[in-house]
Amino acid sequence: MSTVKRVYTFGNKQAEGKADMKNLLGGKGANLAEMNLIGVPVPPGFTITTDVCTEYNQLGKEEVIELLKEEAEAAMKNIESVMNSKFGDSENPCLMSVRSGARASMPGMMDTVLNLGLNDEVVEGLAKKTGNARFAWDSYRRFIQMYGNVVMGMKPESKEDHDPFEVIIDQIKKEKGVDNDTDLAIDDLKDMVKRFKSAVKVKTGKDFPTDAWEQLWGSVAAVFDSWMNPRADYYRKLNSIPEEWGTAVNVQAMVFGNMGDTSGTGVAFTRDAATGENLFNGEYLINAQGEDVVAGIRTPRVITLEGSKRWAVLAQVSEEERKADFTSLEEEMPAIYKELFDTQHKLEAHYKDMQDLEFTIQEGKLWLLQTRNGKRTGASMIKIAADLLKEGMIDEKESLLRIDANKLDELLHPVFDGDAIKAARVLAKGLPASPGAATGQIVFFADEAEEWVEEGKQVVLVRVETSPEDLRGMNVAKGILTARGGMTSHAAVVARGMGKCCVSGAGSLKIDYRARTMVVDGQTFNEGDWISLNGTSGEVYEGQIATKNAELSGGFGELMDLAEKHTKMSVRTNAETVKDCEVARGFGAKGIGLCRTEHMFFEGDRIIAMREMILADDEQGRREALEKLLPIQREDFEGVFAAMHDLPVTVRLLDPPLHEFVPHEEENQKVMAEQMGITVKDIQDKIEELHEFNPMLGHRGCRLGNTYPEISEMQARAIIEAALNLKAKGITAIPEIMVPLIGTHQEYAMQEEIIRSTAEKVFEERGERIEYLVGTMIEIPRAAMTADLIAEKAEFFSFGTNDLTQMGFGYSRDDAGKFLPIYVDKGILKHDPFQVLDQEGIGQLVEMGTSKGRSTKPDLKVGICGEHGGEPSSVEFCHRVGMNYVSCSPYRVPIARIAAAQAAIKDDK
Amino acid sequence: MSTVKRVYTFGNKQAEGKADMKNLLGGKGANLAEMNLIGVPVPPGFTITTDVCTEYNQLGKEEVIELLKEEAEAAMKNIESVMNSKFGDSENPCLMSVRSGARASMPGMMDTVLNLGLNDEVVEGLAKKTGNARFAWDSYRRFIQMYGNVVMGMKPESKEDHDPFEVIIDQIKKEKGVDNDTDLAIDDLKDMVKRFKSAVKVKTGKDFPTDAWEQLWGSVAAVFDSWMNPRADYYRKLNSIPEEWGTAVNVQAMVFGNMGDTSGTGVAFTRDAATGENLFNGEYLINAQGEDVVAGIRTPRVITLEGSKRWAVLAQVSEEERKADFTSLEEEMPAIYKELFDTQHKLEAHYKDMQDLEFTIQEGKLWLLQTRNGKRTGASMIKIAADLLKEGMIDEKESLLRIDANKLDELLHPVFDGDAIKAARVLAKGLPASPGAATGQIVFFADEAEEWVEEGKQVVLVRVETSPEDLRGMNVAKGILTARGGMTSHAAVVARGMGKCCVSGAGSLKIDYRARTMVVDGQTFNEGDWISLNGTSGEVYEGQIATKNAELSGGFGELMDLAEKHTKMSVRTNAETVKDCEVARGFGAKGIGLCRTEHMFFEGDRIIAMREMILADDEQGRREALEKLLPIQREDFEGVFAAMHDLPVTVRLLDPPLHEFVPHEEENQKVMAEQMGITVKDIQDKIEELHEFNPMLGHRGCRLGNTYPEISEMQARAIIEAALNLKAKGITAIPEIMVPLIGTHQEYAMQEEIIRSTAEKVFEERGERIEYLVGTMIEIPRAAMTADLIAEKAEFFSFGTNDLTQMGFGYSRDDAGKFLPIYVDKGILKHDPFQVLDQEGIGQLVEMGTSKGRSTKPDLKVGICGEHGGEPSSVEFCHRVGMNYVSCSPYRVPIARIAAAQAAIKDDK
Repeated sequence: MSTVKRVYTFGNKQAEGKADMKNLLGGKGANLAEMNLIGVPVPPGFTITTDVCTEYNQLGKEEVIELLKEEAEAAMKNIESVMNSKFGDSENPCLMSVRSGARASMPGMMDTVLNLGLNDEVVEGLAKKTGNARFAWDSYRRFIQMYGNVVMGMKPESKEDHDPFEVIIDQIKKEKGVDNDTDLAIDDLKDMVKRFKSAVKVKTGKDFPTDAWEQLWGSVAAVFDSWMNPRADYYRKLNSIPEEWGTAVNVQAMVFGNMGDTSGTGVAFTRDAATGENLFNGEYLINAQGEDVVAGIRTPRVITLEGSKRWAVLAQVSEEERKADFTSLEEEMPAIYKELFDTQHKLEAHYKDMQDLEFTIQEGKLWLLQTRNGKRTGASMIKIAADLLKEGMIDEKESLLRIDANKLDELLHPVFDGDAIKAARVLAKGLPASPGAATGQIVFFADEAEEWVEEGKQVVLVRVETSPEDLRGMNVAKGILTARGGMTSHAAVVARGMGKCCVSGAGSLKIDYRARTMVVDGQTFNEGDWISLNGTSGEVYEGQIATKNAELSGGFGELMDLAEKHTKMSVRTNAETVKDCEVARGFGAKGIGLCRTEHMFFEGDRIIAMREMILADDEQGRREALEKLLPIQREDFEGVFAAMHDLPVTVRLLDPPLHEFVPHEEENQKVMAEQMGITVKDIQDKIEELHEFNPMLGHRGCRLGNTYPEISEMQARAIIEAALNLKAKGITAIPEIMVPLIGTHQEYAMQEEIIRSTAEKVFEERGERIEYLVGTMIEIPRAAMTADLIAEKAEFFSFGTNDLTQMGFGYSRDDAGKFLPIYVDKGILKHDPFQVLDQEGIGQLVEMGTSKGRSTKPDLKVGICGEHGGEPSSVEFCHRVGMNYVSCSPYRVPIARIAAAQAAIKDDK
Repeated sequence: MSTVKRVYTFGNKQAEGKADMKNLLGGKGANLAEMNLIGVPVPPGFTITTDVCTEYNQLGKEEVIELLKEEAEAAMKNIESVMNSKFGDSENPCLMSVRSGARASMPGMMDTVLNLGLNDEVVEGLAKKTGNARFAWDSYRRFIQMYGNVVMGMKPESKEDHDPFEVIIDQIKKEKGVDNDTDLAIDDLKDMVKRFKSAVKVKTGKDFPTDAWEQLWGSVAAVFDSWMNPRADYYRKLNSIPEEWGTAVNVQAMVFGNMGDTSGTGVAFTRDAATGENLFNGEYLINAQGEDVVAGIRTPRVITLEGSKRWAVLAQVSEEERKADFTSLEEEMPAIYKELFDTQHKLEAHYKDMQDLEFTIQEGKLWLLQTRNGKRTGASMIKIAADLLKEGMIDEKESLLRIDANKLDELLHPVFDGDAIKAARVLAKGLPASPGAATGQIVFFADEAEEWVEEGKQVVLVRVETSPEDLRGMNVAKGILTARGGMTSHAAVVARGMGKCCVSGAGSLKIDYRARTMVVDGQTFNEGDWISLNGTSGEVYEGQIATKNAELSGGFGELMDLAEKHTKMSVRTNAETVKDCEVARGFGAKGIGLCRTEHMFFEGDRIIAMREMILADDEQGRREALEKLLPIQREDFEGVFAAMHDLPVTVRLLDPPLHEFVPHEEENQKVMAEQMGITVKDIQDKIEELHEFNPMLGHRGCRLGNTYPEISEMQARAIIEAALNLKAKGITAIPEIMVPLIGTHQEYAMQEEIIRSTAEKVFEERGERIEYLVGTMIEIPRAAMTADLIAEKAEFFSFGTNDLTQMGFGYSRDDAGKFLPIYVDKGILKHDPFQVLDQEGIGQLVEMGTSKGRSTKPDLKVGICGEHGGEPSSVEFCHRVGMNYVSCSPYRVPIARIAAAQAAIKDDK
């Protein structure tokens, strides 16, 4: 026998291990030990170390059992003494669970066996002890199935094959003519056990083991084996977990809350998960198992007296009735309650966060089965983080780290009001393109959306996809639903910018514009029918469901102040309207990182002038049309610059291909032809000329500005003149002119020359100057590769990670819906790279672009203005890369600010 | 006075400088010195060093003249003594030229002044001396214009402004009612000189300088100034030439061949530029200037007696007539001829290449004005390189380096026959997509092309663009013409593969399929009209022009043997038909680098099964259709593998989006619907479902294989079974299975698993194994960035630089025609990156992909199979990166082999 310690016991508030022995005991084992040490009553047990896993793989099962036997038997004695019962005993049985527990959490990857120690005699003892034969036999048949599958290899090899145990269950139900397991009689369960055992014999040639220790060793070996199963292997590779780490095995006594009236079970929260209030709360049931609380067959009772009374008022239960049938645990079992109350305090103090507990009372003794950080609403999350800080339990940095930045979204958008949503039928599921809840009548055309809203209706705009022509209709709709397009499709990007609910790419919708219908799974919806959208989950519901506006709690402001204090990057916004600027400034944006000028070209007369320019045959014609656009653009810029006074505003020059400005539906073409005094044929010819097979890779961005320099010239003039006009009124504008889609430094040099010479011309005309910067988007892979050359002239870089992702991956954001979901499902991609920046690949381009850029211009200002600028893990990446700022849509500014502060804090650690 | 030497004289076969003083004297100055030293009679002159340029920028004009004066005057005396005339003298004037000459050639970037030393008196002297007043005054007015523009700042500042001298010329022509300068009388030229001088006075306030030295110093200063002009600055930046290098200035005596009957001028070649024959040849004119030889007003005479006699036979000139009017220089001026003959020998021996000479005889004295390596035909290029090697003038490596690999193309494709082409009218110009010449009747539809050819017609297929549906029609056509698409469009790639003439992207064509017409500049061509294409130049001609097949001269084989000896990379081919394999093997291909399987899916019944698969609703349906494709694919592979026996064949799995296999024209949809027993609506619905906004970035490549694994499975099975079938016949197939469009290592792992498990299954079924590799295309930027991860599994990489260029630049190859030509014109891009690999940007991805890949798998096999694999500069790049092979279309194999050998030779140096 070796002198190496292989088994660590815990129980009765004592333990041989402790929290920092995770490598040896696994996460679960170390935690079980620690809970004992801080005085939490957890069922006793022992942990077999991760080193034994390695020995097991080298030596095999039999030798390892030899090595373990002595220590395990001693540990079992300890368990039996704490539980006052005996493993494998038919009078007073103590059942065991066997669970894996690796250094890193690998949820669902490995096997577990429960109810270990049952056999034909012990089951009778359990029946007697609990006075519940049904429970005993149900536990027994479950044990056989689990053990049979996990340990004895009964598990079917492929998905097409059936679980032999399930086949038997179905046979018996059919024989008995019942639908549910719960409708089977005790004798049926006994019969099931018999059939299960004979199935095991037939398939494996072995008898089902009756000896408790044999059962235990079989389970321990199965857990070690499962460390090497393909599923676990795949998970490890995906998560870079070394195979050498191995898993520990935890053997723990099972406890039961259904052993009569001195037993029970419940769940509790150390604080209110909905509001964050510092109030212990939870529910319990006497003589019940954990499932019973969840299943809702019996109405659970409230744990605290105060809570119980509040509940009674809401449930319209009289105090008498309450006392009779719904007494609180505080009243029912005051000592147990006190122990539970003290324990929850210990746990919260230990984990320094709101805990979600599961407990069982077995014959008058409290056992904590599980504790974990409790899930909570956005509002509760903020309040708890703030309260823990005030209570001195955590410091400012930790308080900030407690915020799940993504969850802030809940606080910034409308939500469904009340319970109606629970009953609502989900029609379809699309992508959660822009968060919030919306309800309205279906309308298929943007201009009709406007008309309907003018008539006082509330609408949801339903389109196959949206285009810039639909902007005004999108703006008045409550929500937007599209059948095509991904997270960065036109609909998604615009909706997020507007802070408007949007579900995109709901592929099961068949939209027929002509018939004005939307068909889902054979059900037809007409124009005017009500639907509702959840833009946070991507769900589409039938009918009208009331919504309410979100409210920002007081804690929100404090949180933002805290973020401000700890952040290093600043957060800007992507905005082009005065309203958006105001919203974003209200949320603390420090400037505009992306002002898309093309959005300014769609309203009213502008689009006419824009189209005149597109239809012009030569530079002269274009210049005449641009003349008309100049004052309009200037005025727009004045509005944006004024709203963002004293803060930098990055204006991106015209980016989309020109065909986006020309109507593609014949009806609209007719209108346009009349407005412009030309024929529909003229328009169609132009559209044909502008047509591109892959417009995303076509004639757009600076390629427009370099082939038609007069466009860049007009835009540069409008920007500089606007800034000068404001200067005359005492308002400081700080324009940063940004060239889109640069791929080569020569392209940049040409655009910069146009911009600077135009600016100089305007300064000369006005006899007055302003400060401004000229820089570029880095959104083409080649630009990242040659950033050193581009930075010789560019004063700032802004990473356009939408396009960088499109081109870096070769995924069209409008088409990737056909395979991206499958890729995410199969684990080829961990996330949709349009939602979460792909740090492994695209991230390299961002890092390379930044470091190469700064290699020639050390003080180069670097930011990001792709949609990733508002996604927390991407923001953290941007911080690590050393960016000066991130920019995102107005409603994501708070999220980005928190994420930026968290990144800085993590970096400091 | 400093003792630094600033002026280096040359002349009379003596010189102070020499060839290796390029840094000090500039390229031109050093060469002028060297020519004197080897005994070539060049007009005397002197070089002002590049160091003076630096001094000039620091000290300014006046001080630098002071520094130079003494040396320059001494040098001028030397010139005057050699020329036996005097600078600025009105009796016996010697005129000068002033030219820049930097270390590196900067063609057209800087200024030149000719005829320096003329004024109102000297012009009369020149008139008298030459007996040609017209020439004298014409020279004078040209001098004023040139000097006025270059030295006195008369040059208009912007393109919109007019050259003031040109305005005057136009005025005078209008006054005289003549169209051409040559129609003006001598008095008109005198008048012009007057008006020129007064224009200078008006604009600059200065008189035109009459003093020769003042003229000279003005010109020298202007050359130095031009080193810093924006044009030169831009060129330097583009070509990484440091500003500090400065330019030298060459002052040289001018000589005139029009000074009577003892003067003359001519051009000569040391060998025959058309055939390469080692035969001195050329033409001359007595009493003429260089322009006269070129202008063709007088018939030039032949230099050698033998040549002259040959000429007379061809020109049907009797020997008497020849002797009277067309004597050779050999007869006319035997001494001069002898000197010229000796000189050309010296020059060829010195430059070790065929020289193209310009000479002038001034009053019985021979002057060489210029010598350079002569332009030549492809055939001549090969013969000369081989002969120079045989003559021992150059070694094998140098002989190989003398080949312009691109020029081999001429030898591999049909060309227009005879002179008809000279008179042919160019209708339009497109991209030179696939070289050669073709003539045929216009046909607009691929199936009709087939019918017409069956009827014995010869056709040119004219399409807006081609798709895989058109393959058979393309195959039978003499040439292909498209209105859209770039150098790597479907038409271009397929045509090059077929070795068939193609002009793509001829944007000025308006094709109307319904009317069956093609309209160019208002002229309508109907189906059946004759047109001709030059795929080497991109020109489209009206009418039928005879073509002839190219012939491979004997020297070609020797050249290829030489390449084989010196190359390090091997050259493979892109091929998928047995015919292509044979062609490529004949050209020395060492395997297939890209066998596109999708091209196999179009013919006959295959397309039906393919379409069944596409239309299938589930995996089962797809599997049934794939069952039908399996034997067809297997058979195809057997053919290709057999043709390439004992050589590796890289088979790429299905790559294009599925919609390419479905007909997009309603007529074809009807046929398909009938064949498959479904409705046209079914087909249209499927097409709608398959539609993508940016198909290039859509559901294709391994994304198909990973979402429909059964496709990869079928293809892997067909490949392995084919190889096993051949093995049974004693034929060795070496398949390398290549996964397209990999972006992440997980994608690759999933495809590899499918391929390997399928292969194992087949091996088990057959009880027989073969060797095979599995690898991937690197064509997505992200794949290059994460190549280290991918190479953990992949056994080879093949760079797909077409897609890498598309995605790296964000240029759709089908759409870039709208801006790429403009970009190349404006110098934003040096080349179309689809033709010449962009080493600066995309090259980084290739290098990174290679080195990252080899960081995890040092012996990773790396190749390229994009169209760049047949482009010489790109092949050289591939060699430098360390690739194992390049692969290109069959007809480019010889070119790639030469380029690969050249790269290896250059690398050794």
